[in-house]
Amino acid sequence: PSSAEGVSSKPASPIYGVVLPDGYRQWEMVGVATEDAPLDELRAVVGNPIAMKAYRLGKLPFPDGAMLVKLAWKRQRSTEFPAATVPGAPTTVQVMVKDSKRYADSGGWGYGRFIDGQPVDAAQHQTCFACHNALVKARDDVFTRLAP
Amino acid sequence: PSSAEGVSSKPASPIYGVVLPDGYRQWEMVGVATEDAPLDELRAVVGNPIAMKAYRLGKLPFPDGAMLVKLAWKRQRSTEFPAATVPGAPTTVQVMVKDSKRYADSGGWGYGRFIDGQPVDAAQHQTCFACHNALVKARDDVFTRLAP
Ligand code: HEC
Ligand code: HEC
Repeated sequence: PSSAEGVSSKPASPIYGVVLPDGYRQWEMVGVATEDAPLDELRAVVGNPIAMKAYRLGKLPFPDGAMLVKLAWKRQRSTEFPAATVPGAPTTVQVMVKDSKRYADSGGWGYGRFIDGQPVDAAQHQTCFACHNALVKARDDVFTRLAP
Repeated sequence: PSSAEGVSSKPASPIYGVVLPDGYRQWEMVGVATEDAPLDELRAVVGNPIAMKAYRLGKLPFPDGAMLVKLAWKRQRSTEFPAATVPGAPTTVQVMVKDSKRYADSGGWGYGRFIDGQPVDAAQHQTCFACHNALVKARDDVFTRLAP
């Protein structure tokens, strides 16, 4: 079985060695977001059961084993209902995996950004912790709140 | 146990008698959307296991027992990251329940729109089938596609 911890044949992110977790598309929805042009995306963040439990308890930091995945799509006008925008082509899938020992240097989170299942380069992975930690350190480096 | 079929003490929608299904907030995400001003909302559609299975098989019509719930929130600028918009206050929760016999007159779907857990009036429930059937009849009256 592949995991961020174990031996895996899945492509892993540089710096962190994070892989796309099995079955994440079936995880529970944490929240949704849009990102303005030029990215112009619709996004959904899903969490594994450990992450969802922590969200519901409202407890920070997230415990080891928590995983968050952000799915993103180009945002496009609905052809059936023009007042709506809906997901177009998928862009990136991004992962955060909590392991406070392994990732002690990056706030306990390992990061991975994937395009078509392949991790992007190390330069991009140098930006993750910097941005998350600069902007939402007080929330354990996690932006997305549990949507009611 | 409350269900759209059984005896329930939950508030039910006029015309259809549809209630908010138990545990829908834990259901799998089908897709996300925005709605322009004046509604100015972010939305997520979730499905129960019967609905998700039908989506994955790509088979229409949805089988009896399929349920879809649309969550909606006011869309607001992220305070931490202004290029993003994120969920604000929840607005409506909308439900579609497939029961081809009970709801034979409305394409097999029963409809419910709830605000703060309470169903809205009959006049609003007269609009649901009219719009869905006019615009997406060829997709069993369901707008939202399974996002990749
Ligand atoms: C310039 C800022 C910035 C950078 C750089 C960045 N992120 Fe994020 N990230 C965000 C914002 C803002 C969100 C909140 C959701 C949204 O707006 O899409 C987010 C959300 C996430 C989420 C969902 C959990 C959460 O915190 O809400 C994951 C997972 C994630 N990012 C992974 C990554 C990875 C992996 C990288 C690097 C390869 C990265 N991020 C780089 C700004 C950034
Ligand atoms: C004027 C058109 C219109 C009316 C009226 C309408 N809907 Fe919808 N509905 C939509 C559109 C468009 C979507 C697709 C998602 C989005 O844009 O929010 C949708 C999506 C949904 C969904 C998610 C499943 C799907 O088809 O994508 C549910 C559940 C739903 N509506 C319930 C209702 C209920 C209940 C009512 C009446 C109380 C209602 N709708 C009235 C246009 C309409």
